[in-house]
Parts: sequence; C-alpha cells; structure tokens
Amino acid sequence: MKILEDGICSIKSIKVSGYREGKYGVMVIYHENSTAAAVYTKNKVYAAPIDVTRKHIADGNISAIIVNSGNANCYTKEQGIENANKMAKIAADYLDIKVEDVAVASTGVIGRQMPMDILEPIAIKSLESLDNNREVANNAADAILTTDTVRKECAVEGQLEDGTKFRVAGLCKGSGMIAPNMGTMLGFITTDLEVPRDQLEAMLRESVKRSFNMVVVDGDQSTNDTVILMSTNEVKGEVDDNFKEALDYVCQSLAKQIAKDGEGAKHFLEVECSGARSEDDAITVARSVVSSSLVKSAIFGADPNWGRIITAMGYSGVDFDPDEVSISLIAGENKATIVDCGVVMTYEDPAILENAEAIMKNKDIRINVSLNDGDSTAVAYGCDLTYDYVKINAEYTT
Amino acid sequence: MKILEDGICSIKSIKVSGYREGKYGVMVIYHENSTAAAVYTKNKVYAAPIDVTRKHIADGNISAIIVNSGNANCYTKEQGIENANKMAKIAADYLDIKVEDVAVASTGVIGRQMPMDILEPIAIKSLESLDNNREVANNAADAILTTDTVRKECAVEGQLEDGTKFRVAGLCKGSGMIAPNMGTMLGFITTDLEVPRDQLEAMLRESVKRSFNMVVVDGDQSTNDTVILMSTNEVKGEVDDNFKEALDYVCQSLAKQIAKDGEGAKHFLEVECSGARSEDDAITVARSVVSSSLVKSAIFGADPNWGRIITAMGYSGVDFDPDEVSISLIAGENKATIVDCGVVMTYEDPAILENAEAIMKNKDIRINVSLNDGDSTAVAYGCDLTYDYVKINAEYTT
Repeated sequence: MKILEDGICSIKSIKVSGYREGKYGVMVIYHENSTAAAVYTKNKVYAAPIDVTRKHIADGNISAIIVNSGNANCYTKEQGIENANKMAKIAADYLDIKVEDVAVASTGVIGRQMPMDILEPIAIKSLESLDNNREVANNAADAILTTDTVRKECAVEGQLEDGTKFRVAGLCKGSGMIAPNMGTMLGFITTDLEVPRDQLEAMLRESVKRSFNMVVVDGDQSTNDTVILMSTNEVKGEVDDNFKEALDYVCQSLAKQIAKDGEGAKHFLEVECSGARSEDDAITVARSVVSSSLVKSAIFGADPNWGRIITAMGYSGVDFDPDEVSISLIAGENKATIVDCGVVMTYEDPAILENAEAIMKNKDIRINVSLNDGDSTAVAYGCDLTYDYVKINAEYTT
Repeated sequence: MKILEDGICSIKSIKVSGYREGKYGVMVIYHENSTAAAVYTKNKVYAAPIDVTRKHIADGNISAIIVNSGNANCYTKEQGIENANKMAKIAADYLDIKVEDVAVASTGVIGRQMPMDILEPIAIKSLESLDNNREVANNAADAILTTDTVRKECAVEGQLEDGTKFRVAGLCKGSGMIAPNMGTMLGFITTDLEVPRDQLEAMLRESVKRSFNMVVVDGDQSTNDTVILMSTNEVKGEVDDNFKEALDYVCQSLAKQIAKDGEGAKHFLEVECSGARSEDDAITVARSVVSSSLVKSAIFGADPNWGRIITAMGYSGVDFDPDEVSISLIAGENKATIVDCGVVMTYEDPAILENAEAIMKNKDIRINVSLNDGDSTAVAYGCDLTYDYVKINAEYTT
C-alpha cells in the first residue's frame, strides 16, 4: 500500500473545490454517476441536511457532495429542509445535474437558520473553482473546518490480489463534540474502484466502527455527523480484503488526525484493550478509559495515575476480573508495565514508576490494558483534557 | 420539618470524632447496637473496606463507623483487606466492641497500600476525642475531606403523623470523580427513629437514587463510594412517609453540597427533566445534559448555548420527539423559555436571548427541559467545567 501526496485529488477523475469567508466555507466534490454509501449520527436530534442526503443517496447514486461550515442547519424545521435542498440545488444548477444526485452536509452552530444570503455566493465562488490539483485539495479540506486547527486528509494506492491497482482518498473535519457514534465529524472518502453498492455500504460501516466511532474528544455526540464513501467506478477488478484494508487505513488515519486535533489537545492518546471476551467488550473498555475526564486530566498533567485507568475500566460495565488485568504505559519504544496480571509492579520496583513518569512526558501516549480473558482487541483514540479545551468551549458562539 | 444546627451531632446519643494530619484523617461515629443499611459503588473495581463493611453490616447491626481519608485502600489485594480489618479492630479495641460491629470506609489515592504506621496514631487520637458537640461535628466532617473545599452536613427534625418527633442527621464528602452510581463519595446518615432493617435499606436506596446518584461532576465513578444509614433506635413510632421525606431532604441537601463543591466549580447547575414517559427516562435525560462537557463549558462561559442542551438530550438514548420539547434557563425568579414545544422563541423575540445571557451570569443555574410526553420528572445536580477542574486533576497525586 502506497501513501499518496495529493489528498482527495489523488482520485484524478474527480473535481473538488473549497472557498471560505470568515467562519463560513463551502466544499464541493464532483464526479457524475458515482456510487455512494453513507453513515450518519445516531443522535435522536439530527440536522436537516441528513434528511436530504438520506433521500438523495437512497438509490446509491450521486454526482456531487456540497458541504458548508459555519452553520449546522440543525433544529431548523421546515426552513432548514428548504435550505438544505437549496444548497443541493445551487450545486445541481451550476453543474447541470439532477438535484436528487447531490448529497449535502453542514457543520457549525446548532439552532440557527442558514444565512443563505451569505452562503449562496460562497457556494458559487467554490463551484467556479472546481478542479483537480494540490491547491484545490487544500481549499476543499480547509473549507469544512470549524474549531479544527489543521487540515485532515489521507490517500493511498492499493492493489487487489488480481493485480488491479486502485486508490482510496479522503478528507474530514472534526475536533470538538467528538464521541463514539461520531461527533461533529464530517468525512468524505472517494475511490476509483468499482464496488457493488451493498458491499460499499457494509465495508464503510465496518471501517467507521473501527475508526471514526473510536474517537473520543469530549464524549458529546453531534447532530450532523456524516461519512460518505463514493466510488467513481473507473477501475474494475475482483474486490477483496486489500480494498477493505486500504479503506480501514484511510479511515483510521483520518480518525487519528481528528483525535490529535481534539479541542485544546496537548497530547494524543491511544487506548488499546486486548484480551477481551468479545470485540464489543474491548471497544467498551477502550472507550471508557479514553473518555474518562480524570484519565484525560492525568495525561495533561503527565501523571501516571493508573488508579484512574482501572477505575474507568471498572465502571465501563464490562465484566472482568480486576486481579487478572494488565496495564502498560507506552511512548514509542519505551514501555512501563505498571500492573501485570493483577500484580502492581510499582510495589516491586519503584524504577517502573520513574519510567512511567518519563513516558507521560511524551506528546503521544499509548495505554495498553489487557483483561487477560479472551482474544478480542480494540483501539480507541483521544486526547488530554486541557485548559484550552475549556477555553474554546466556554467562548464558542453567542 | 425543622433544620438543626448541630450537624451530625444533632443525634444526641451518638458520639463522633475527627482528627487529621495533613492529607490523612480519621472520622469515627459511635453508637452501640445501632441498626444499619448501606449502599455501595457499582464499580467492578471496588475497595477493600467495602468487602469488610458488607460482611460487618450483613446482620443489620453495627456499633461504630471508622473512615480514613488520604488513601482509598483500593486495588490493594489481601493486604488491603488486612488493613481494612485492622482499621475496624483499632476502633473495636478502643471502644471495647466486637470488630464485626464496625463499618469501615476509605477515600483517597487508589493502588497504594494504607500507611498504617501513619493512620493508626491518627485513628487513636480521633477515638480519644469522641464526643457530642458542635466542635467534634466539625472535626468529623472535616476529617474525611480530600479535594473538597467545604465541610458538608445536614440535619433536620421531623414529626411522624402519630406525633412522634424524630431526627435525621448526615455528613458526607465528595467533589471529584462524582458520577451517577456515585463518585468518590462517602455519606453517613444517622437517625434516632427505630426503623425495621428492611425498610431502612429500601428507603436508603430510594433516597440515594434521587440524590447522590443524580450528582455528576466529571462522569467518573469511584471505587470506594459508600453511604451508610444508621439508626440508634431510641425513638419508637409508626414509621411513615414523613421519615422518608426527611431522609430525602437530608440526602438531597448533601448531594447538592457535593455538586456545588465540584472540583473547580464556579457555577452550580441543576437540570430538571419533566414530561418524560418514565422516571428512568427523566433520569437519563437529566443526567445526559448535566454530564455534557460542552454544556458544562458553556455554563462556565455564561453562554446560553441551548444547541448543546438539545444535543445532549438527543444522545441520551431516550426516545422523544425533538419538535415537542421545551427548554428554559432559570436563575432565581428569572426564567427564559428558549424552546417552547419545539418552537425556537429566540427567533420570535431576540429579547429572550438577551435575558438568557443575563441568566447565565448567575452563580446558580437551572435548566428545565420538558419532553412534553408524560408525567415523570427527575432532577440532576452538577457544575461547570473550569480551568481549575483541569488544574486540580492534572496535579493530584504522584
């Protein structure tokens, strides 16, 4: 598998664009007669564009995706639906395609109507710049950012067992309100490989479960989350696990980029739970630890407070024997096993605690916990809880 | 119902004491042949004293409670059990009672053995000062504090329908790691009313469900939580709902004191969910809102960001119609109804948003949400998420 440098534009047949003015931006991805699948937030309160996109993507075919930042178009009733359809129509009219073939997504403030007078001219300016090169790839990735501090993209080239070469390229946004079941998180992934719609959807669900849904910044789940996977159907071949692997790689790379850009984050945190009886148990424990405010604060304070780790494991709801667990802190090649099959090693050897303290001073921290009770594993991605997280969210909006 | 001023010592027949040196403190409550019931953390990982107390309280009779702060005696294996029994024995020997009649509790750092050489002399000094007056009531309430900044106590006198006067008095500690199913939260409540053991336990469970279990500071659930209700059996009478009401009042007062003293808290937050189909639904929605990091940050920032409130309602998992809900912000007599049966009032009248902003500047904020779909109600207690919360938890231990 080869990493590609052109981001979303690594798929050469698509055209993309992005344009923003202040807090408002519009991104477009365009390729006629694409096959598409999508997954959405599980929040009971979901945004108007999700209604529209669900309808337009139902038949599995779209030709364009239009996305705005600055307003979530959520809790906006009939007018919100009208405005989401209006966004689709702006793209459809400009591209001379059917409005039903345009998917729509929004991110930003909840509970306010879309300022169409501001967004329409931005959308037109964006559409006018549709192209395929490094610059528009940047513009597209930038146009959908809100509290994000960095652009997020990933592209790879893979090869099927039958020798066929294919590409998968994606971009996303998200830094706050991130949680399992996705936060204010928008992801758009394209591939040139022809994949039957059902398979496309099944593979996307699987990949999202192991990537975007394993990211926790603050435990809040957004109303707007959408991940769309679209195929241009150019490359024909016998779809196999190599495509799945490439899709997983792109989704996990994007998910990690979101966690690393968590609001106010100073440290990136990976929590792996192994030795679980089932993958769901592993997922629940890993999420519980990565979500704990006390663990996140300890990471910020570079404090190897493993008591908070085992506490978070304990209230996850998963059944395990505390006297069988192992807990390690890892940074790069450096590993400190603090609890080994229920034995607290720091009692035996104080040097382990010193090493743990050294590990915690690193920017990227990995916590490995094992229930030593099965073969299932899961990894959750998160970040520390910092003054800046509070600052960002105390000052956002109004 | 009359509020009493002597805290835990409002029950005149009990003797209490508290003594602390630095981070370590020991509290004792003593009354021979008391009836007692207790509830404990639901965390899969629980502390050694919980094992010991469960055994000693099983027959419903205790004569004393001994509690230490500074070390949680959790994840400490056989030696932890030995040390918990040692604490019980120190009290039993001094008071010349059976060790099986002593309940034990601990709070503090997890995963370290109890420093018995430090705790034993503190326990003895505490026992030597057993008495019943305002001063020892203060010492007792102070001895169990950890990151708490204020002493927490409540005492009332009530009257049964048959005219019998009775008293309920309690004290507690807790400020961090507070969550539904209780955080590092210790509560000790005494009454002079004779209540059959089964009834005592049932009433305690009910009261805890509506008080301590509705407090959320950071969503973390501790390994040590214990609430013990003990009756001296002095006052005989026909136990009725007036006792239940007094017990609820004391538990809810203590619960609110914990939320107000949440680590780093600048605002006290009450979230009432009404109009729910069931009390469990109301509890789930109220907890979800009071737990949201984004809502908590908005409270800190005095930002009436109701989008985050409805988002937290939406991911609570409770089934409701977003277009039927009402959301109000309240401070004292001042109320701003932002969403009324699904209609966003701030669209209609900008003055409502201005009023909401004024309300958010108050120290105590109440959020009322109604699902307008039933008759059940629940109230959750919490606080804002502040820089100081992060600071306290980034710097605690090691």
